[in-house]
Amino acid sequence: MTSKCESWVQSVALAPPSLSDNTADAERLTRHLERRLGIARLRIDLAMLSGLPTLLRDNHYRVRCILFGAGDAWRLCAATADDAQPALGLAVDLGTTRIVVSLMDLADGRVLGEDSLDNPQLAVGPDILTRIHFSDTEDGLARLQRMVIEGLNRTVADLCRRHQTRAERVFLMSLAGNTAMTHLFLGLTPRWMIREPYIPAVNRPGLQVATDLGLKLNPAARLFVFPNIGSYFGGDLIAGIIHSGLHCREETAILVDVGTNAEVVLGNRDWLLACAGAAGPALEGGVSKIGTMACPGAIDRVAIDPATRQFELHTIENQPPVGICGSGVIDLAAQLFQAGMIDIRGRLNPETCGGRLHTGRNGPQLEIAPPPAGADREGLVIGQAEFDSLIRSKAAMYTILETITASVGIAPRDLQTFFVAGTFGAFIDPASAITIGMLPDLPQECYHALGNSSLEGAKQVLADPHVRPQIDAVRDRITYMELNVNQDFMNRFSAAKFLPHTNPELFPSVTRRI
Amino acid sequence: MTSKCESWVQSVALAPPSLSDNTADAERLTRHLERRLGIARLRIDLAMLSGLPTLLRDNHYRVRCILFGAGDAWRLCAATADDAQPALGLAVDLGTTRIVVSLMDLADGRVLGEDSLDNPQLAVGPDILTRIHFSDTEDGLARLQRMVIEGLNRTVADLCRRHQTRAERVFLMSLAGNTAMTHLFLGLTPRWMIREPYIPAVNRPGLQVATDLGLKLNPAARLFVFPNIGSYFGGDLIAGIIHSGLHCREETAILVDVGTNAEVVLGNRDWLLACAGAAGPALEGGVSKIGTMACPGAIDRVAIDPATRQFELHTIENQPPVGICGSGVIDLAAQLFQAGMIDIRGRLNPETCGGRLHTGRNGPQLEIAPPPAGADREGLVIGQAEFDSLIRSKAAMYTILETITASVGIAPRDLQTFFVAGTFGAFIDPASAITIGMLPDLPQECYHALGNSSLEGAKQVLADPHVRPQIDAVRDRITYMELNVNQDFMNRFSAAKFLPHTNPELFPSVTRRI
Repeated sequence: MTSKCESWVQSVALAPPSLSDNTADAERLTRHLERRLGIARLRIDLAMLSGLPTLLRDNHYRVRCILFGAGDAWRLCAATADDAQPALGLAVDLGTTRIVVSLMDLADGRVLGEDSLDNPQLAVGPDILTRIHFSDTEDGLARLQRMVIEGLNRTVADLCRRHQTRAERVFLMSLAGNTAMTHLFLGLTPRWMIREPYIPAVNRPGLQVATDLGLKLNPAARLFVFPNIGSYFGGDLIAGIIHSGLHCREETAILVDVGTNAEVVLGNRDWLLACAGAAGPALEGGVSKIGTMACPGAIDRVAIDPATRQFELHTIENQPPVGICGSGVIDLAAQLFQAGMIDIRGRLNPETCGGRLHTGRNGPQLEIAPPPAGADREGLVIGQAEFDSLIRSKAAMYTILETITASVGIAPRDLQTFFVAGTFGAFIDPASAITIGMLPDLPQECYHALGNSSLEGAKQVLADPHVRPQIDAVRDRITYMELNVNQDFMNRFSAAKFLPHTNPELFPSVTRRI
Repeated sequence: MTSKCESWVQSVALAPPSLSDNTADAERLTRHLERRLGIARLRIDLAMLSGLPTLLRDNHYRVRCILFGAGDAWRLCAATADDAQPALGLAVDLGTTRIVVSLMDLADGRVLGEDSLDNPQLAVGPDILTRIHFSDTEDGLARLQRMVIEGLNRTVADLCRRHQTRAERVFLMSLAGNTAMTHLFLGLTPRWMIREPYIPAVNRPGLQVATDLGLKLNPAARLFVFPNIGSYFGGDLIAGIIHSGLHCREETAILVDVGTNAEVVLGNRDWLLACAGAAGPALEGGVSKIGTMACPGAIDRVAIDPATRQFELHTIENQPPVGICGSGVIDLAAQLFQAGMIDIRGRLNPETCGGRLHTGRNGPQLEIAPPPAGADREGLVIGQAEFDSLIRSKAAMYTILETITASVGIAPRDLQTFFVAGTFGAFIDPASAITIGMLPDLPQECYHALGNSSLEGAKQVLADPHVRPQIDAVRDRITYMELNVNQDFMNRFSAAKFLPHTNPELFPSVTRRI
């Protein structure tokens, strides 16, 4: 089953035909590749066939092939002269908010350049649910699809221009995203994903002709879309698993993608268990009206001197503070807790908060940053209600971790490797997350930020043909565990709604510090 | 490898999804079919995916599927409501001269109606070579393709109209034709087929999306094109083998398609040996300026009273004679030989031909039919040169049969089953063909006319899914034997240039009669 294919680009020198070897042009080429790569059957498009006889003869039977596939499904996408311009690939992380694109040389998997764009569907709504409802309106689905395809086309054209090449040189594209985003991208209705029993149109979108979707790439270009496990466990997570290598390790490890939804995979090279659950918006910069995405001026790190209770705020690009992003919120809560400014229930302590505590329209609120001098607007404040929301989110996150580990008879603290996926994961300070009891009390070196693991996985499948069958294997091996919100879960959740936890023995390092 | 699929149309009732069974719509359907039919992987088009969620729910998960495939390559072409109009298939014999179309109900393989049309490429030239040269001119290939596609579209639309249906109801089409015709149909250059070493663009065109070729069928319709063995052994022959059942029989049999090219397959269920060779136009109504295709008024049967030398001519549809078709020419030669009007070298005998023998511009000629009363035009005549050409053609035919049988250590007369393929084969009188020594001297009951075996094979693959893998198996099992025109071949050919043969022992039944 495993092919000997080491690159999607294969240079080929065929024995020319003769009276004693009169195999047709197409089969001469495919058989050569089938034998060389150890694959059963390589299929060609009709469109490619029509140019093949001339291409072979003009180039004395030396050509360069671009192919893609795994198992019993291999496709010869294109053949070019052997000395033509590089054959390019495009890896895409299709995020709900941001789309990141990586331009690659398919021959060696080298990244030539990257770019990103806001998901143009933000114009319809920032969240998935709004877009799914919009897709149900007249022409809504087609419009959403068009938005993202056209946006991507523009960015790709720009990116190619900057690297002195053209999108017509792109022969393969791989795309990882959550299930809703990939459905909208493919023009498939996500309508039934949000209605019980939450069914996507497809789990394994497989290989598509890119131009069928309106993508402006080479007419022969193929699009590989990462498979999903279900409506709430998408191809971005599969890409993350691939990037982490979790599925190849002997020891059991965990991968967590923290966001409005917390998606968790636990496992090793023998088994993979996954679940997903709502953690609330608190962890994604949605904590309050001053919550923001990671952007210039967003507070991303907070330190509070326990003695003086002086705040030290770090903002992205050192711009004047305009809001606070997810990693900043976690830092803030951890520092407030350590400085005694919030108690173990997350309540603001009037004694320790002092002059920073005000009474706002919705109750007590804490001033994080004063208003700029001379400005008549308010400073940056966070209310008690928003701290309550954060506590619920972190408790949900920890409860999910406890539940999935318990299902295989271990505890979160038994883990030795903890991957944190996503851009957000890259900025979280594990110490802060541990301090508030969101992540288990493991040594710092156990935590590994994966960065944009969705993009990295998408890049890996273009760089290394051996990754392609792993994706199917991972998808098929994952057992998806429905999180039953039963009494057991609620008990765990209640116990986790304290800082760091009602059971301090679970967080010895925090207990030591407080 | 063998599937349990008994029909390309499958009615399906799926278990609706639930929280505990949240497989996506696409995989719910394909897995059901994969399990039921015993196939590894059934793939769906993106276009079909987009309608699937609504179709399934609107029809309470009861749908009708149209699929096609074999081995590891299965495709779910379409799904419809379970009570929709019948799903239709279209079998096509793509002849160089004539195209025959059969409209079928895919559910049970029943033929609903048939129609035919002249191959519109006749406007470019009657023979393959002219068309191949034309395909090499500016836009020539595209024009030739357009001609045949448009002609077919018109005929199919008419045929559907007459049967109160529409071409949009056609989901599968199978097409068998010679290698050049299928290349032109697919828009593939046949340029290299006529230049040494005679290489087609493709041997196994496989499954195509019909609308990609401009065919006006259901947008999801798939086109299966029969594979070829090479430039001179096409899918029409593979279809003929399938129809004859030669590849399933224990005893060795032979299949011959007689035309300008004689194509021969010898074999049984264990092995298949094929060859093709030029027989000249004499056997295809191209014998003379009065030679014609089988059409109303064509002389197709000839009897000559050996005593009176009276001619009894039969014409198609009993119309006044306008020419003589292939089977008529063979009858004529056999009858003339038996009546002593031509000798063993095929020379017209002045003594016995009497008043029918004239001297024309190109030497002696025989009047077959007098001019109509009062007409000033000549009657129907055949010249000596044309009899010479016929002798060469029949000698070539017999030599090919001798050569292929000799290669496996048998003689033509050892055969017990002799299939004669093609429309022409249906009209040949084996007794006449034996008399002139064109076919071996076997009892009449050994000869089986297959009729339009190309069309029949194309129909079989639509009627019975088990035929599909047989086609690949036959193609891969055939050993193609190049006919080396060496001294041995020339010796055999010289010996065969007599009526019936220089060795009368090869034709005892003829020798007895003369």
